[in-house]
This record gives sequence, C-alpha cells and structure tokens, in this order.
Amino acid sequence: MLKAIQILGSSSGFVIQYWKPRNCTGQGLFSISIPSKSSLSLSLYSSLRIVPAQDISFVPKISVRRTRFRAFHASSTRSEPNPEGPSASSSSSSSSLALKSAAHVRNIKFCQWCGGSTKHDVPEGEERMRAICTICGKITYQNPKMVVGCLVEHDNKVLLCKRKIQPSYGLWTLPAGYLEIGESAVDGAIRETREEANADVEVLSPFVQLDIPIIGQTYIIFLAKLKKPHFSPGPESSDCRLFPLDDIPFNSLSFSSMVITLSLYVENMKAGRLRFHYGTINKRPGTSPSDIQAYTLDNHMQS
Amino acid sequence: MLKAIQILGSSSGFVIQYWKPRNCTGQGLFSISIPSKSSLSLSLYSSLRIVPAQDISFVPKISVRRTRFRAFHASSTRSEPNPEGPSASSSSSSSSLALKSAAHVRNIKFCQWCGGSTKHDVPEGEERMRAICTICGKITYQNPKMVVGCLVEHDNKVLLCKRKIQPSYGLWTLPAGYLEIGESAVDGAIRETREEANADVEVLSPFVQLDIPIIGQTYIIFLAKLKKPHFSPGPESSDCRLFPLDDIPFNSLSFSSMVITLSLYVENMKAGRLRFHYGTINKRPGTSPSDIQAYTLDNHMQS
Repeated sequence: MLKAIQILGSSSGFVIQYWKPRNCTGQGLFSISIPSKSSLSLSLYSSLRIVPAQDISFVPKISVRRTRFRAFHASSTRSEPNPEGPSASSSSSSSSLALKSAAHVRNIKFCQWCGGSTKHDVPEGEERMRAICTICGKITYQNPKMVVGCLVEHDNKVLLCKRKIQPSYGLWTLPAGYLEIGESAVDGAIRETREEANADVEVLSPFVQLDIPIIGQTYIIFLAKLKKPHFSPGPESSDCRLFPLDDIPFNSLSFSSMVITLSLYVENMKAGRLRFHYGTINKRPGTSPSDIQAYTLDNHMQS
Repeated sequence: MLKAIQILGSSSGFVIQYWKPRNCTGQGLFSISIPSKSSLSLSLYSSLRIVPAQDISFVPKISVRRTRFRAFHASSTRSEPNPEGPSASSSSSSSSLALKSAAHVRNIKFCQWCGGSTKHDVPEGEERMRAICTICGKITYQNPKMVVGCLVEHDNKVLLCKRKIQPSYGLWTLPAGYLEIGESAVDGAIRETREEANADVEVLSPFVQLDIPIIGQTYIIFLAKLKKPHFSPGPESSDCRLFPLDDIPFNSLSFSSMVITLSLYVENMKAGRLRFHYGTINKRPGTSPSDIQAYTLDNHMQS
C-alpha cells in the first residue's frame, strides 16, 4: 500500500550517467538520453501541471560518456497527503533541506508517550534540532522511510499496476509501498506485490535503491518472478498487465522513481546484464514544483 | 552518530551461503564457514553473555555449495536504549514479529500533532493496527530506520572506530549511524564518517544492505576511500585505525552487521571482485537473547 507517496513525474529530455566501480567487468561509464520531445501525461493533485502525452512509449538511447557520477534530469512533483511531510515546492539545496528538516521537527508539538508538550532544541552532543518532551525528556526522532517493491518479470515482460488511488490515480506503477516494522525489505516487497497485484512472487535479486531526500523516502526495488502465472488487480489497482519492454508506458507512469527503475531495467536487459543501482533523486534548486524536468539523479553508482 | 542501535554479536561457527543472480559472471553459489572454535569477546549491556576471545582474528574459509539463499549463523543480542523499540528477547517468527509490531503501536499513547489521546485499531482499508488520534484522526505510522555508513579502504586496509559510547563501548565498528530526514544515504554515510573518524571520504559504490526486522533497522554500507590520508577519533570514538584484511579484529567487533559486512568484504577482496549484497538478519526462534549464535542471515543475494 502506498498512499502517501511522492509524485516524481516522468519526462522529457533526461539523461542518465553511469559509473562502473572497479572489479566489475562489462560496460563502463555511459549515459542514457531520452528524446526531448517525450513528455508525460500525469493526472496529478491540485497545483500540478497536466502534460499532454506525445509519445506512447520510448526506450532510452545509450551513448558512452566518460563522466563519473551525476545527472538524471527528470520532471517532478508530488502530492502531500501526509501533513507532516516536507513540501516539494522549494529547492533541494542543503540550506533548504535543513529548513525543511527543522520545520518537520517543529510540527511535532506533543510527546507520543506521555502527552507532554515538546520544546524544539539541539540536544547535548547532537547537531540537529529535535522535538524534546518538556515532561519526560524523551526525544521524538524523525527518519526517512523505505518504500519497497518488485519489478516482476514474466516471459520477457514486466508486471505493472494501474493505480486506483491517489496520488497518481490512473497511472502505472510497479507494486510498491512502505516497509513495515517487523518485516524485511524482501518480505515487504513480496507483500506489496501480493496486495496490489494478487501475485505470488519469488524475489531474484536487489535491483535499485533510489533516495529522495526532499520527501524523506528511499525506494528499494527487487527483481522478482511469478511463482504461478496468475495475477489480478488488488483493492488499490484498477488493472494489472504484463508489458513487453518495448511497450512499457513511460508516458503514463506514476513516479519518477518508476521511470528511473524501468529505464535502468530496459537498458540493462538490452545490454545483457542486470546490475544493482544506487542513486539520489534531487529537485533542482530554484525550480517550480510543477516543472516536470526539475529533478536530477545524483551519485548514480552500480555494482 | 549511532546510539540506539542493535548489538548483533559476532561469533563462532557461522556459515554464509551465497546466491548468484543470472547475468552475472564470476563465482556462483558458495558458502563461508567460520571455524567453530572462533568466538568473540563482547562487552555488552546487562543480560548479555561475555564470551572469551579465543582467536584474535579469523578469515572466512570458502567452499562452493549448491544451495540457493539461506543461512548465516551469527550470535546476537542488542541493547535497547530506545524505549519505543521492540525487544530482542523473543523469536523472529511472524507471529512474534506481529505481536512486537502491535506492542510498538500501543506504546504510542498520544498524537504528536494535537496532543489528543490515541486509540489502537486497524484503519479502514488497512490490515495492521495503527495509533489513531481520537481528536484529529491522524495516524502515527512507525517504520524501520536506516543506518548508513562507510567501509573506508586505504592502502589495502580498512578504517575502524573504537566506540566510546554505549552500546558496544570499547568494541570496533565501521563509522555508521541513523540516516536523517533531508539527506541521502550517501550523504549520511559521509557525514557519519566525518563525525566518528574526522575523515573526509569519497563514496565508491554501494556494498551491502542488511535488514534486521526484529529491531526495525536496515544497514546500508558503502565502499569509500579517504580523500586525504587523515583521520582521528571523533567525540564518540576512543580510537580510529586502519586494519590490514588479515588483522581485522573480528573477535571484538560491535555488531553482527559489522561482522557480516567485513566478512563479505574480505571474501570479495580475496576472490578479486566486489559485489553488492542484500540479506536479512533474523533471530532464530526460541533462542535466548544472550545466545550469541542465535541469528541467521536469510535471503542472502548479491548482484
């Protein structure tokens, strides 16, 4: 289940650059360029721009480039059903993130254990502002959350779910949702796939970790396969389908994290080798929340 | 900074089994066996057993084994300075984890936003008990936390810090701590390395993700290198040293996650190829919290 989640839109004109660590064989550094005319149809909340779909589907073009780290330009915005979350409306610079973090802490006005009012101060030995109970002294820490899911492969196709809930109602996503206390990332990814696609899967390998600091989320997606060739929409999906790689609906995906994950997957499959990827999705400073090209993928590494 | 953290002790007689996903070259499935006479000296909290150090250091012996997934047997226990966290004193079975999760939720007695008392119920459309405010209706979700850190390499040695704080006072660890809101895993790992070892590092690649469901933590460790050959103990460390691979103090490491990470690193380095690893550290059902061999590494996969 993934209700309170970001919409990091998908896009026109983005570029992926890879770095290959030592001790790895195969391809080296390269980039993926998406044709700039590609754009996405996003059914989004309130203030978000609706972008006409021009290309039904696209597949990244690949060219080798000798630059380490940096640069995935993708459109972005998100809904904010969770009132405690930071806003996506400003830049991702350090000062901005620090302000957001402080604002996040100031939202915590009461102690969840004793009900005492909190003060907002930097505890001794720490460097960040925390919400400290004025009665019992306990600190309420706020930390990023993990979103776990599966990229399910079957007969050279991938399983996508059409969202029947906001945000991103009507758009396609990999089955994914928040990791719960008491479960592993693998178990959470399997559970989410069962809930959203009524599919029983076996996880094959980790595929991607994508941090989104501005909204305090980290996506962890595993490759998986169907144990049985059965699936159907769960309560939060209106449709579930297997898409051949060339027909993945990149123009109507729900989140940038999904665009990135599926682009990397298509790229790796065409190159004949699947890798594990890490990256940070940042909003470009000074851009509008409705600017669908306002995100970059930084620190992109693969193993 | 990593104050409220698990102690998953290190150990005698553990086994690692690997699985190699398709499309990967190099070694296939294999296991690491640690001599059963190896044991660890752990200076632990309260109820934990102190185990005499018999072997100053050890390096895993490797043998090929054709089994998919499963099995890392390592000792384990942990301190619990965070009162909201689950106890490590019972098994990691599903029912036990469900009970722990429910207990975790019941600890939340007040709404942190309006101060209203909470009820503990399963919201409509969900399957898990949540703490729901009886005044404003908001739900306080509790999710696992990420611990991020660096395995810093320099001149074929690795950088370890001796802990000057509890838990695991006096034991060696990789620099690591909780990921903060507003930062990426890479930035958090760099920050922790600067705080604990006064070391300025460049991250090279992701190396391991280890989930520990029973305490709601996920370790994410990156390989890194020193930008300058300077380091010194930070406020939470009494010493920082570079250890050659054959001299890593496996018998006095702080946490099982560190034993696993460093064992995998030594193994990969000896095999001439670094990989990305995923695994789940579980407590074996029915074992005592003081049993230092009571954890298994499940779902071990590498890319």
